[in-house]
Amino acid sequence: MSAKRPVRELMPALAGKTYFNYGGQGPLPSPSLEAMVACWRTIQELGPFTTAVWPFIEAQTVAVRQALATLCGVGPHRLALTENVTSGCVLPLWGLPWQRGDELLLGDCEHPGVVAACQELARRKALRVSVLPVLELCCSNTQEALEALVLEQLERALTPNTRLVVLSHLLWNTGSIMPIAAVAQRLQQHSNQPWLLVDAAQSMGSIPVDEAASVADIYAFTGHKWCCGPEGLGGVALSERLLEVAQPTLIGWRSLRHESTAASSFHHDARRFEVATSCVPLASGLTCSLDLLAAQGSPQQRHQRCRQLADRLWRGLQALPGARTLLNQPPPAGLVSFTLHDASGRQRDTAGTVDALGRAGIWIRRLDQPDCLRACVHVTTTEAEVDHLLQALTALQQRQA
Amino acid sequence: MSAKRPVRELMPALAGKTYFNYGGQGPLPSPSLEAMVACWRTIQELGPFTTAVWPFIEAQTVAVRQALATLCGVGPHRLALTENVTSGCVLPLWGLPWQRGDELLLGDCEHPGVVAACQELARRKALRVSVLPVLELCCSNTQEALEALVLEQLERALTPNTRLVVLSHLLWNTGSIMPIAAVAQRLQQHSNQPWLLVDAAQSMGSIPVDEAASVADIYAFTGHKWCCGPEGLGGVALSERLLEVAQPTLIGWRSLRHESTAASSFHHDARRFEVATSCVPLASGLTCSLDLLAAQGSPQQRHQRCRQLADRLWRGLQALPGARTLLNQPPPAGLVSFTLHDASGRQRDTAGTVDALGRAGIWIRRLDQPDCLRACVHVTTTEAEVDHLLQALTALQQRQA
Repeated sequence: MSAKRPVRELMPALAGKTYFNYGGQGPLPSPSLEAMVACWRTIQELGPFTTAVWPFIEAQTVAVRQALATLCGVGPHRLALTENVTSGCVLPLWGLPWQRGDELLLGDCEHPGVVAACQELARRKALRVSVLPVLELCCSNTQEALEALVLEQLERALTPNTRLVVLSHLLWNTGSIMPIAAVAQRLQQHSNQPWLLVDAAQSMGSIPVDEAASVADIYAFTGHKWCCGPEGLGGVALSERLLEVAQPTLIGWRSLRHESTAASSFHHDARRFEVATSCVPLASGLTCSLDLLAAQGSPQQRHQRCRQLADRLWRGLQALPGARTLLNQPPPAGLVSFTLHDASGRQRDTAGTVDALGRAGIWIRRLDQPDCLRACVHVTTTEAEVDHLLQALTALQQRQA
Repeated sequence: MSAKRPVRELMPALAGKTYFNYGGQGPLPSPSLEAMVACWRTIQELGPFTTAVWPFIEAQTVAVRQALATLCGVGPHRLALTENVTSGCVLPLWGLPWQRGDELLLGDCEHPGVVAACQELARRKALRVSVLPVLELCCSNTQEALEALVLEQLERALTPNTRLVVLSHLLWNTGSIMPIAAVAQRLQQHSNQPWLLVDAAQSMGSIPVDEAASVADIYAFTGHKWCCGPEGLGGVALSERLLEVAQPTLIGWRSLRHESTAASSFHHDARRFEVATSCVPLASGLTCSLDLLAAQGSPQQRHQRCRQLADRLWRGLQALPGARTLLNQPPPAGLVSFTLHDASGRQRDTAGTVDALGRAGIWIRRLDQPDCLRACVHVTTTEAEVDHLLQALTALQQRQA
């Protein structure tokens, strides 16, 4: 790891609390906030709407697009900037050439937002939704064994009508990594060559993503979770073949090649999925956060560090009476999900545990499906924080015993 | 007008330049930037993802929703927050029950973004697009006469298949006000009760909008033009009848009543058209800007002031050799569009004029349809600025003579 000043010290959110909700939202480094303020000031000084301001605005947008494209291992022409993960997942879907009866195959660990969006797409276009079960596989197998098992499951689930597969890269509930590159390869061999939509909400910024992002058709992420950027800016990497056929749906001046006329064609590149005015200073903030994280080590090094910390937490939970981790093997990345149980084996109320820890300044979250607790560790996490959480959980278990 | 400190003095963008591009983007007051920074700091102090931060975030969102709903004369349940005007215009459209052959009637002064979006909607749903010509009417009639003439034109253009009418409240090119309330009333009497979509990009913050916003089905605006808020936050007021039938299309966790499950129904209210994570601090910034503008006078008073300034500019242009205003009557609001001509009557290059003025620190813009120059005056504009622009235009005409 780099010997530079730890980014942790630049994050006011980490002062006075013990934070494990990186998968919900990452802490914003002060330099990123300062970068946004500086950007706003420059826009006001040069503009806000003048010939003088456009090159500056273009430079902010180009910089963040290039940085995100590089992380995704794609050219910047394949990277659209979006407001959030959902926009990146859903917008390209609506403009694909669906046919009545096409099947959408959704992993059973996908986020409710994406699932609801696919259900509505299916309702309107008369498509069918089916489920690819991976949850059980994740819980009872090593990450190494998982790849082959997920591919077997995919094999069973694919039909001649399968036209889309939706799978997260890093599952938000179990914390397992899905073999996206292998899935993409398999889908290419399928008669129908189904589209592959990857929800990258948890992977971008926490594990290396280029191998998966460059082969998915839609690889959608946000900057405000593991990248520690501001809320309201994300992106999506799109495949060449998708760009060839998908029409934009939420069309605004940014979708058009020539913004001054409605007779214009759409941008040939990923910008066709950008819409209209968005908040440019967020680009400066995200670029700054990405730079600060890069100074902590390569994506591989940072992933390794998260994995070490997750391992420490996972092992601590094995030793904690009444704690059960979702995974029966150490997690492959920074998400650690578990449940607490009383002496008779009954699961304790997860909301109550979140509140009790919160009162002690320790922040984890609960999930609904499955009903569990989730703690995330990032490169900004310390061993002392992990131990503090384990001690607090131990005390909670003892107090409730 | 209020005796409070003029908001102009709080806008760094207005220092060192003479600014007439409020219709492109309004200057951001320093207190609004400070409000955003304070919001970000509080989110980091309490959160960013903790039980402690949700009430604060909810309060910011509720405040801006309420402020915008009040301006629109609707209950907050009818107001969805959006990223920009386009999202507000287009998202509700995609979830309406279209039938093959339905007709979309678009004003001929609509923004290319909205027109392109309607064309794509028509292509996919097999609808027909027709045009409601208002440009000529605007140029050669008083604002007072315009209402009846637009209604006559509408009468001629409506067919039994008309299912949507798209019209801006304040036209971005001529600066004319469309009689939205009267149009809405007429459409209610039409057999088909067509939906009324109003692009409010230029009206919100520059003229009173409640009468129009409360009767349109979709009244979409942004906070970053005449409201002088940050870029990236706008809203849309939706009718009760639209909320009853329109399904969301860009679905995320914010569209769902119960965000933790995809089996959830959508929000009953306008939040069904909100998507997922957006930038909460922008809400604090826009609320601050709206407060600062409100301190300058009521919407009626501020409109009156813009009209006075526009009148001064329009009259100055009548006296300027070679200048021709688009309107042959003083403008009804703060947008003043015109062209410059040489001694032989040939129109001067508009881009060249914008550049020449820009070099003198005076910022207006050019438009394509029709090819013209546009200067906007706001409550923050001074008579001296208007005179400065007129002098610069006079000098330009003399130099080029």
